[in-house]
Amino acid sequence: MFTHFDNRLIGDLEDRNRTALINSLSGFKNLNLIGTVSQKGQTNLAIFNSLVHIGANPPLMGFISRPDSVEKHTIENIRETGFYTVNHVNKNIFEQAHQTSARYERDRSEFDATGLTAVYKNNFRAPFVQESNIQISLELKEILTVKTNNTLLVIGEIQDLYFLSEILDESGILDIEKGGTIAGSSLDGYHTTELIKRLQYAKP
Amino acid sequence: MFTHFDNRLIGDLEDRNRTALINSLSGFKNLNLIGTVSQKGQTNLAIFNSLVHIGANPPLMGFISRPDSVEKHTIENIRETGFYTVNHVNKNIFEQAHQTSARYERDRSEFDATGLTAVYKNNFRAPFVQESNIQISLELKEILTVKTNNTLLVIGEIQDLYFLSEILDESGILDIEKGGTIAGSSLDGYHTTELIKRLQYAKP
Repeated sequence: MFTHFDNRLIGDLEDRNRTALINSLSGFKNLNLIGTVSQKGQTNLAIFNSLVHIGANPPLMGFISRPDSVEKHTIENIRETGFYTVNHVNKNIFEQAHQTSARYERDRSEFDATGLTAVYKNNFRAPFVQESNIQISLELKEILTVKTNNTLLVIGEIQDLYFLSEILDESGILDIEKGGTIAGSSLDGYHTTELIKRLQYAKP
Repeated sequence: MFTHFDNRLIGDLEDRNRTALINSLSGFKNLNLIGTVSQKGQTNLAIFNSLVHIGANPPLMGFISRPDSVEKHTIENIRETGFYTVNHVNKNIFEQAHQTSARYERDRSEFDATGLTAVYKNNFRAPFVQESNIQISLELKEILTVKTNNTLLVIGEIQDLYFLSEILDESGILDIEKGGTIAGSSLDGYHTTELIKRLQYAKP
């Protein structure tokens, strides 16, 4: 049996309930830690669940950020420096990754607060997360603003990709399940995955 | 041990390999069927893996669409009518859902081609997928264009939500794992999930 919630009923929910409900509607989410550093050298690390593929040539990724949220230090640093890293959350670090969503002061690094390790590679300006098995560096390309609520879509071009060597499979993709990458639901659920099947390119 | 691919190596990959690789980098993806209808009454159904939460009040969702791809019929219909549905893909229908990505002609409905059932509810203009356990109707609010490669971010406001009654949990969210919703990887992987844990709201 199906339950029906209409727009008015959703609007009448208490704020925190509505936020949790609406966040459960988009399905399983990727979980990534975005690493940045300010002009002054202060590092920042924050969990995001909204990474999207934008294109392969050039290789572009986007993510959604609310300007008025705890995520704002990440955006400030990206605007200042133009560089950031994306690091997959895996089952060994999901509790530390979740903890980065707490509202730490600007001068407190989430690396220090959570015990995750900042590592710099090949002179790239922003820090990677050493405990992550898939690490990506990006250069900012553009930021689009959603008029309705000032949410941002931040788009970057992939510069470098580091991954555990054994997870590159014979078809040329990263086997992210083998890499321990996990999936999220709503704002608080953490899930492992199990492959059902990979399907062939579909033809009519 | 880590392997390093730099921007130049990625750029030198064969097109199809690069597309598959880059699509594997954003982590696990949601899988949703978007249902639309043209002005003339021709239905369309297409699988998307890029739904993002945009806001809870008003309740907004976005998705990414490539204008030059098989996804273009979906965008054309949304522009014509202003309405569409989002339907979670579950483990019973993932093969049919994948098949909607084939390049069918404009006058061929993917509902007919795949055997999924179009259902209309409460006079909403676009069709839902009857076999989906979480069905959402949306009204178009805005479309943003990524300058770098003309990819679109399509944003809609949630109008109605239909879900299997038993999956609304005591905290007020939909238990999407219980609803059979699955996760995707790269362009061809389909995965079930298993909850590790739900975590408390994080505080410093």
